[in-house]
This record gives sequence, structure tokens and C-alpha cells, in this order.
Amino acid sequence: MIHLESDYNNGAHETVLNHFWETNNERTQSYGDDRFSNQARNLIREACGAPDAQIWFLAGGTQTNATIIDSVLQPYEGVLCPDTAHINVHESGAVEFTGHKVIALPSHDGKLAVEDLQTWCQNYFADETAEHMVRPGMVYITFPTELGTLYTADELRALQEVCRSYHLLLYVDGARLAYGLAASQDVTLPLLAQLADIFYIGGTKCGALCGEAVVFPKGDAPTHMLSRIKQHGALLAKSRVVGVQFEALFTPVNASGSEKPLYLAIGQNAVTLAMRLRRLFVEKLGYQPFIDSPTNQQFYILPNDRMKQLQQVIGFEKWCPVDENHTACRFVTSWATTEFEIEEMEKLLLSL
Amino acid sequence: MIHLESDYNNGAHETVLNHFWETNNERTQSYGDDRFSNQARNLIREACGAPDAQIWFLAGGTQTNATIIDSVLQPYEGVLCPDTAHINVHESGAVEFTGHKVIALPSHDGKLAVEDLQTWCQNYFADETAEHMVRPGMVYITFPTELGTLYTADELRALQEVCRSYHLLLYVDGARLAYGLAASQDVTLPLLAQLADIFYIGGTKCGALCGEAVVFPKGDAPTHMLSRIKQHGALLAKSRVVGVQFEALFTPVNASGSEKPLYLAIGQNAVTLAMRLRRLFVEKLGYQPFIDSPTNQQFYILPNDRMKQLQQVIGFEKWCPVDENHTACRFVTSWATTEFEIEEMEKLLLSL
Amino acid sequence: MIHLESDYNNGAHETVLNHFWETNNERTQSYGDDRFSNQARNLIREACGAPDAQIWFLAGGTQTNATIIDSVLQPYEGVLCPDTAHINVHESGAVEFTGHKVIALPSHDGKLAVEDLQTWCQNYFADETAEHMVRPGMVYITFPTELGTLYTADELRALQEVCRSYHLLLYVDGARLAYGLAASQDVTLPLLAQLADIFYIGGTKCGALCGEAVVFPKGDAPTHMLSRIKQHGALLAKSRVVGVQFEALFTPVNASGSEKPLYLAIGQNAVTLAMRLRRLFVEKLGYQPFIDSPTNQQFYILPNDRMKQLQQVIGFEKWCPVDENHTACRFVTSWATTEFEIEEMEKLLLSL
Amino acid sequence: MIHLESDYNNGAHETVLNHFWETNNERTQSYGDDRFSNQARNLIREACGAPDAQIWFLAGGTQTNATIIDSVLQPYEGVLCPDTAHINVHESGAVEFTGHKVIALPSHDGKLAVEDLQTWCQNYFADETAEHMVRPGMVYITFPTELGTLYTADELRALQEVCRSYHLLLYVDGARLAYGLAASQDVTLPLLAQLADIFYIGGTKCGALCGEAVVFPKGDAPTHMLSRIKQHGALLAKSRVVGVQFEALFTPVNASGSEKPLYLAIGQNAVTLAMRLRRLFVEKLGYQPFIDSPTNQQFYILPNDRMKQLQQVIGFEKWCPVDENHTACRFVTSWATTEFEIEEMEKLLLSL
Repeated sequence: MIHLESDYNNGAHETVLNHFWETNNERTQSYGDDRFSNQARNLIREACGAPDAQIWFLAGGTQTNATIIDSVLQPYEGVLCPDTAHINVHESGAVEFTGHKVIALPSHDGKLAVEDLQTWCQNYFADETAEHMVRPGMVYITFPTELGTLYTADELRALQEVCRSYHLLLYVDGARLAYGLAASQDVTLPLLAQLADIFYIGGTKCGALCGEAVVFPKGDAPTHMLSRIKQHGALLAKSRVVGVQFEALFTPVNASGSEKPLYLAIGQNAVTLAMRLRRLFVEKLGYQPFIDSPTNQQFYILPNDRMKQLQQVIGFEKWCPVDENHTACRFVTSWATTEFEIEEMEKLLLSL
Repeated sequence: MIHLESDYNNGAHETVLNHFWETNNERTQSYGDDRFSNQARNLIREACGAPDAQIWFLAGGTQTNATIIDSVLQPYEGVLCPDTAHINVHESGAVEFTGHKVIALPSHDGKLAVEDLQTWCQNYFADETAEHMVRPGMVYITFPTELGTLYTADELRALQEVCRSYHLLLYVDGARLAYGLAASQDVTLPLLAQLADIFYIGGTKCGALCGEAVVFPKGDAPTHMLSRIKQHGALLAKSRVVGVQFEALFTPVNASGSEKPLYLAIGQNAVTLAMRLRRLFVEKLGYQPFIDSPTNQQFYILPNDRMKQLQQVIGFEKWCPVDENHTACRFVTSWATTEFEIEEMEKLLLSL
Repeated sequence: MIHLESDYNNGAHETVLNHFWETNNERTQSYGDDRFSNQARNLIREACGAPDAQIWFLAGGTQTNATIIDSVLQPYEGVLCPDTAHINVHESGAVEFTGHKVIALPSHDGKLAVEDLQTWCQNYFADETAEHMVRPGMVYITFPTELGTLYTADELRALQEVCRSYHLLLYVDGARLAYGLAASQDVTLPLLAQLADIFYIGGTKCGALCGEAVVFPKGDAPTHMLSRIKQHGALLAKSRVVGVQFEALFTPVNASGSEKPLYLAIGQNAVTLAMRLRRLFVEKLGYQPFIDSPTNQQFYILPNDRMKQLQQVIGFEKWCPVDENHTACRFVTSWATTEFEIEEMEKLLLSL
Repeated sequence: MIHLESDYNNGAHETVLNHFWETNNERTQSYGDDRFSNQARNLIREACGAPDAQIWFLAGGTQTNATIIDSVLQPYEGVLCPDTAHINVHESGAVEFTGHKVIALPSHDGKLAVEDLQTWCQNYFADETAEHMVRPGMVYITFPTELGTLYTADELRALQEVCRSYHLLLYVDGARLAYGLAASQDVTLPLLAQLADIFYIGGTKCGALCGEAVVFPKGDAPTHMLSRIKQHGALLAKSRVVGVQFEALFTPVNASGSEKPLYLAIGQNAVTLAMRLRRLFVEKLGYQPFIDSPTNQQFYILPNDRMKQLQQVIGFEKWCPVDENHTACRFVTSWATTEFEIEEMEKLLLSL
């Protein structure tokens, strides 16, 4: 069986596991103030070119979104996002559970269009009954999106500009950031740190067992973040469990001749194999992409009988029906996917 | 430096780390339905003698308390506990943050007295204005308590009886359960599973990197627990991170001639060393215990100048001032504490 | 100045004020158990043909929606509604503030289409990731809608059927119920009590100073409603303030030759005058309706210069721009609007 | 039957009802911006000597406490109060329902001792684990207290001083403020406006049908209060319902030869009759006071058989058992209590 059902069906990158061993006998402070977390913070600040960044390590993505969004918004504020956004669809209402409305705007291939945002804001702030409506406090986007697509640097800049003019925070959910950065033509960690007010660097889907790193690049997080995080049940007593992993992931390694954090290197692997998958599906097999994704999530439209046949030998996800006889299916590579697996898959598919 | 400041200043038990390696190349389901979590559930059911038990794995203690208490209580219900209870003092108000009052009763060496509970309930249910007060829905206790003390089996039975007669759930926070079970004369996992409606088996402080196992021994958890847990930000996508650890911790090992789960064996180590610490402090050095604790948390009253001297070479926690010249100090052993450390400490203290 | 800006720009119906006088010297129980509230409950049960109905009196509409929706939903459930619904647009996010997602479906002239509801439910319950999404628990509609339109009895029956088949509660917000019942061809209080699981009879906009009556026609409200209501800050100590008003509003009066509750009689007045307004705007002045409303809220498209002229002498609300030169405007009659006012308005408009 | 069971068993003061009639035909703005509310604000500002005061009108006491406390506290902050405080005992947990811990300190005849507050704060801010505990943000007291007692001006000053030094807001719940001001030797509205950061002037128990006036005497309320209030379900659409009443209550009347707001005059009536009640119980009948209250709530210890006898003819409240044969009982006068009632009571009690 070849497993392409998700990018969290795996364990942790070897370097990460190794680092647990290397550090296991040390005794440390707790609640975020351990040596490994502090060292990981320094490595992330450096990779982001953001020396003043404040960084917190949380255990998972939904937790991170709910905790951060609730912490930075005023109680009467809501969060704007494209309607396909993870917080709007697949977090069991965790953001609303903290009391904030998720205000969904139309999405375009999973992305928020700057024009839609601009128009919505214009209307809201011109409305005489605005105080009776939920005030926007933040724009939430994902990079890459839930459909694997990417914002260009220019698109991010345009969104940031609208945010600035309406005093909205720009928050980027980077659950799959490693894959987004590897695939993007022009978005880098330092650029993200410049354009976003807050973002998180996803670990769970990108080489770690668990853990996400929340970055306030300008160092302007709300006061008493430790209490706020604990109140949301998101403070790890033995915080080194995430610190050790991010220290490993952000230690530079030699990759294709240059030094870069392991995190960026393993993102590249997944994207390279995803592109090979794309060639297989589109060029060799002639399937139609459901969406044109440059990252590790690939979506193709399969005839239903072929889909059923494939399900016997490949793990993947049915995304949504396209018509009576066709279904869009999602194939996901990750840092753990091997060339061997993709080769096997090629053989398998070409032989059907 | 000898580190006795807490039981979460360490890494993970070797067997746990090893199990990460052994399982790292497997691909699994997610969100709690992975093979390792399921196997860990079976091992825990067996150790508890509770074949119908429902079990969820969460990342940390405060998260577990807030998520579970909020999930089982009705919105208008509160939780009764002794006033020293962790949820009442040291969780940044996480339970109240979910909307429920923590109703604190007097504590006796960290324990809730059955008489106090009985009287409070009697008064509440006799009060004509009861509907204007917070209705009790649950009793929360810790085993061992925040002061290291233990309830006897009879005390637990008496508490359970009062709970039954007033339709209150009995919830036992077992953040340090391994140490409590190792030290108790008569409380075992199967007994706990019989007396408590809900309890959690602490991993973070007892051999794991992170993770707690919530047990509903009778299998009567509220519906849609997965959604509830996710809504509280407590659902791990890559759930194996806790499953693998609890599989390792609940696999039986040979300890002092008999088979028992590793979890219970490593609890014993901490307690044995804690008792050796007690002999050192009380018998050899003549210090007064601040509280008489049979478990891994030990509290002694030190003269302030001696305390300051010790702080140079031993990591421990100032608990509270006793008088102008004396301070109660907490020394904590854990699964990770070694005989060597305690021996060094003996030498050190006897030489002062 | 003629005031048609809203139906809550007025005081209370004379009979209501009189009843305050008549009852002022009596001493009563409190917190909902006063003689006037109990008598009002009986009158409402009779008017609804629902002898088992449970009824609570709250102070205002947003309060009622948030309190009731939060009380009957499970924490992980959301509420479905058309996107123009009051709870989705104009309640400052009060429902989300209690932790529940408002799931907006397309609206058609302010109404929810049964087909849209059916399709959404079908998709939700077929989705394999449903547990990660917000589960629907209730359908919220308004009668009349925010645009003055009405559901027919058949439309309500069809919605109820879908609700039943997916175990959703059907909740009807009747902030302007008096006007809806007066204008409807086939929806009556007893029919509403049969089809809705919960509804509220609006007082604030229909003759009272304040107050709404929440009806659970089948008598199946959640337990401990008094505590729940108080917890939401919605329990009036001197509950007679609403009880006295609803007693007055539901005491039968002789209207057009037959006996009916005052509440229904005063709704008729507003609708009659609204229809006269319609003839004036459409037939006599040739303006286009923005929406075809049979109730007390009337919407017409006015040229902007004419709109500005009217604003000098008539109080009304700009609803939304239609094109560069035209604006949809809302004119609202109420129980307090007089024939004289409408006559003056006719003269005024015909003379322009 | 003579009714002394509470101060909300009545209707409204005649002047209040009259003012509803006088104003009934006017059309007004809504949501707090009506002419009557604005005029009432001016009258209150004048009575408080606080020209910059911001004032909001809400419907009831619990609603006011929950809305205001939640609006001014940070999410991680709690509210300190004496353990007998209304928010701690009799609001169905409404404050915790908004997410904040109520931190109860010992009470002394219903009052918070400045020493207790000082010590608690000192300990909290010296605690190294403070970030894991609920941070105090406010001190809540009632004037008069739930036991009818009063703080002296000096006591209020001392509390304010501690609040200032620890950056805590001082909030005074004035549900029965009219009676407190009438009975106090040295506390006046202007003094309260000087010492408290926030207070509310109770209407429900002091002459109105419903309604409380929240005062931020320094004009430093949080931004977007209208949205915050609406979000808590506490914004009245037809806001004049409270505005009209407070306009009536704060219009100066001639009382004992000088001009003062009706509100203060009617408080005097209740206190005068309460003192007459005290003479009856203590001097003439020889009963022991349960607490020495100078205000409209009077508490006496009655033999149980006498209590049962009285219950046939007088409405009053059993407060709590004192011993096997005696019960503390509460007798409450109000603005509505008449001399005739107290005379009848005297006859009745002296004849037993």
C-alpha cells in the first residue's frame, strides 16, 4: 500500500527523533522557558530575519488558530477569511467556540481576493448599523491554502495594504508552510515575517510529531500571553517536547549545495515528488487536475471505477464528486514520502 | 546540580523514545484512530479491568481538565473541589474560561473531606434559592493531591457514595497517578476504574514527553466527544504522538519478579527514592516535614539560611513561608531520578 | 415629521400602560412566578391552542435569540439560517458569542428555501469529515423576515419536514409576529405552535415597552431553564414588567366583530396602513418596490434627490443603494401608526 | 397580608408610571440614543457631580454585573469580592459563564475588609507562579451589601487606595443604592462617583419597573460599548423603557424642605420604615438582630414557632437556620412600603 492520504500519517523526521535522544538526559525549565525552546526561538528569528519576533510553541493547528485568534481579537471582533478556510470548515467551530464570528468571503481556488476584501470592508465601515454587526479585527489566510494553492508576494502585499488601511491584523496559517515556501516563486520566510502580523510555522505536517510555532514578527503580542495560552489549555508543562523538535527543524543543513534550515529542505522533497505525481497524472495518464496546485496536495479528477481500483493499492482521499461518473481525489506527499513510493506508484498506474 | 524541582523537568523514558523509533516508518490513521492509540487503549482497558472503557488521549493536564469538565457538565453546573485543587489555583482559570464555576470547599492536607462535601450538598439542595446558585455537577479530586497526599480506598468509596446520592460525577485528576498508585496501600487502577466516573492517567509527569489518557471506565462518555475535544483545541491530528507513548507505558514489563505495566514500575522508582529522601531529611537531618506525603512530592521546613545554601547545588521549589526564619520547600523525584542523584544529595547534605 | 423609521420608535399601547396602573399596587412573586406572568402564560397557551406550552418572558429580541439558541443546542452544534437572518447580520455576533456557529445559507427575498436546506443537510451528513465540521442542531427563520416577507403554511410544513428528518429543531423568531400573522393568508398562532419546536412572540415591536414571550409549544424545554436564563443575564427579578404587558396584549378584544387577542388586532392596524402606503407608492406615485412585502415593513426604490427631499419631512431608513441614482428605502408602520399620519403623508407626497 | 419579602415585589413609583403616559406619544431614536435616556443621563451626571460620566441603561442587575465585568476585564482576569457577594452566590454563575473567575475573600457582615484585600494582593503579586493563577482585575463590592450593611466613606477610600496601588478597578453594585445613600452618614452620590471606577444605580429595586444605570464617572469606558452590550444580549431596542424611568427618578423633587432627586427621596421612606421595624423587633419585642443593618433589609432571629405563626400573615424570607429552634429571617421594606403597613404589623406583632 502506498500512503498519500495526508501529510500527518507519518512519524517524525529522523533528525527530530535523534534530537530527542541527544537531549533526553538534560533537565530543563518548563512552561516554555526551557533551553531547547529558547534555542529554537533564536533559530526561527534568524530564519525569518526578525530579531524582535516573539514566538510561542503550541501543540496543534486548530488549537493554535483558536488560541491566537481569540487572544488578539477584541470580544466584539470577528475574523475575515475565504469560505474554504480551515477555521471556517474543518475545526469543529473552535473559533466560534471562543466567541468570535468567522466571516466568510468568497474563495477563488482557496484564496481570498483582495478586491473582495476591499469591497467588504468599504461596505462595512460605511454601514450606519455597523455597531450592530460584527466588527472585523483580522484577516485569516492559509499558505498554502486548503487546495494547495499559493498567494504570490504581490497578492500578499495587496492584502496587507487593505488590512493596514482598515486596521485589521493579517494572520497566516502555515500548517503546511514548508511546502508552500518550497513551491513559491517569491514568498520567503523573511517576506512573510514582513507582511504578516502573525503567522504560524506548522510542525505537525512538516516533519515533527506535533507542534506549531506562532510568530509575532514585530514582537507586539498581547500582554500575558502565557496566561492566555494556558487558559486555552494550550500551554505544555514539558514545553521541550516542541522546543526540541523545532530546534532540530530549524538547524541549518546542507541542501542542494547551500545551507538552509532542515524545515525548508524537507519541504522541497515533498514538492519535488508532488510535481512528479503531476506529470504522471496529467502528462502520462491524461487526467484532468481538479485544481492547479504547485504544492504537496494534488487534486485530480478520476473516473469512479478507476478510483475504486486505485483505492485497493493507494491511500488517498475522495475530495468531492464532480459529476455522476467522476470524483475529485486528493493525493498528498510529505517530507516522509520516498522516491521509491512514487516510482512504485508510476509502475502501478501505468500498468493498469 | 541535582534537579528535584519538578517531575516534568525531564525527557521521556527510554522505552518510550525507543518506541517512537520502532514505529516511525509506519503510516497510520489520524485524529485518534491510529493503530498505536487503539493498541494503547486495549492495554489500558486491561490494566484497569474495564473492558468497556472509552479512552481519549490529550496533550496536557490543564487542557484535559478544562476539556473534560466542560464536556460532561451542563452549562449551569459547577465543579466542587478542595480549595487547593489544581483547577482552583494553578490553571489560569481555564475551567472558568469554559463558563463553569469552580466551587472550592476547605481542604485537609490537600484532600476533600467527605463530611464537608456531604454538608455542602445537603445545604445546597435544601436551599430555596438553589436555582439562582450554581448547581453542582461534579466532584474533582487529585490522586495524589497537590500536596502529595493520598485518599485511602475507604475515603474514595465514601466520596463516591455522596456523589451517587446527589447525582454528581466523580472525576479524578491523575496527573501523577503513577506515583500515587505506587505509594498507595489499597488503591489500584481497577479500583479507581470502579469508583471514579472519569479519571485521567497522567503521562507528562510520568514517563512521557506529553500526553494524558482520559478514561470513562463505564463507557458512558458524552456523544460526539471527537467534536467536543476538537472544539476545545485538544484533538491531535497526528494522534500517534500520544498513542505510541501510552502503548510503551502500558506494555507489561518484569518488575520485582512480576509483570506489570511499565507505567506502574516507573512510579515505584520515584516513590522509593522519595522515601529515601524522607529518611534523609527527617531521620538523619532532623527537619520537620511540612506535610506528611507518601508520594514523590516531599515538603520540608528549612531554615532560610540553609535553604539559600542548598539552592546553589540543588534544584527545588520554595513552597511557602512558614515563619520569618523558615520556609516550606518542595523536593520532587520522578521516574527519571536516579539512585546516584539521591546518594550525591545525601553526601552533600550530610557534609554541610 | 411623520415617523416611519422603525416599529420601536414608540411607547406602548394604551391598554398596556393602563394595565400597569391597574396592577401597580399588587405585591407579587418574582423571577417569573408572578400572578401576571402566569395569567399571560394561560392566555398565550389558549391563543396558541397549546395547553402544554412552556413559556418564558425575556426583555428583548437579541437576548432571546442568544439565550434560547445557546440553551437548546449542544456545545458542538450550530444554527442554520438564511444569510439575511437577524442573528447572522444584526446582533453584534451575540450567538457566536455564546460559542455557536451561525451557518448561513442563501436567502431568497429573506427566506430560506427548503431545497437549499435539504441539499446542505444531505451533503453534511454524507461528509466523512462531518465530525470536524460544525454539526447542525437547529434551523432559525424569522416570521416575517427581515425583508417583510412571509413563509406560506406549506413552506413552513416543508421546512419542518426536513428538520424532522435530520433531527433539527425549528425555531421561529417572531419579533414582528403580530404583523406577520395579520398579513398571512394561512399561518395562524395554532399552526405555528404545531410546526415550530420553539418560537417567540415579539412584544417590543408589537405594542409593548419591552419583552418577548418564548414558547416551547410541546412543553419540552431543557431542564433548569430558570438557571440557564439567569446565567445569560436574561432573568428579570421583577418579572411582572413583561407579564403585565403580555397579559394586556393577549386579553381578547372585540375587533372587526369578533373576539381576538389585542396583539392580533393591533398587528392588523399596521398592515392595513402598510397596504395603503403600498398603493400610494406603487399605484399613485409609480415607484418600484424593492421587495414585495405584505407586512408592515415596506421597501421602495426612490430617486436619490426625491429621497433627500422626503428625509426633511418623513422619518425612514435608507436600506441600500440600488444604482448610482437610486436607493432602496424602508418605511415601517406599527401598531402606533395612525390613519392621520398616512393621510398626511399622502397629501405630502402627492403635492411634491 | 403584609408584604416584606423583597424590594421587587411591587410595581413602579407613581411618578414613573405617570412619565410613561406623558411621553407615550413621542417617537424617538432607539438603542440608547433616545431623548429620554439622554435627558436621564444629564440628570444623573448632575446628581453625581460627574459631568464627564458615561452612562448606559440595562434591564437588570445580574445582566449588568455580567456585562460590565466581562467588558472591562481582560480575558485572563478575575474579580475579587467578599464571599457573600451577589455575583459569588446568587447569579447562577453568570460571571463565570462569561469566562472570569470570581475570587472570593472572607466577608465581615457582608463587607470586604481592606486588610484582607491588601494581604491577598500582596501574596498574589509576590507569587512566582502568578501567571498560572487568575490575575485580579477588579474589586466588586455592593452598597448596601447583601446583608444590608454599609461601607463608611473611609472604608471606601481605603479600598480605593489598595485598588489603585494594584491597578484594580473598583466596581460598586448599587442594586439597592437608594437605600444605602439614604442610610449612610457620609457616602453620597458625588463621593461614590469619585471613589468608584464604575458603579450602577439600581432601578428595579428602587422605584422602577426594571432598569439599572451603569456609570463610568470618569468617562473611561471601553470602546464599542454598544456592541459589547448588544453581544451580551443587554441592549434594549426601545431603550426609552429605562430612559423614561430614570428621567422620572432623577428629576429633583421637594423632599423634607430641600430639592433632591426622587430616587433619593424614596430611598429615605424605606429606611425610615425599616428603622421603625427595628424598634419594633428589638426594643418592643426583644428579638435579637441577626445582623445590624441600617438599611431597608432587616434580619432578626425568631423562634421557629413564632416564625411559622408570622408566616401566615406577613410575607418575609427565611434567611438561614441559627440553631435548632431559631431561624434568621429577613424583612424588607421598599419605596412602596407604607406607614399603614408597618402600623398594621406593629399591632399584629404586639397582639400575638
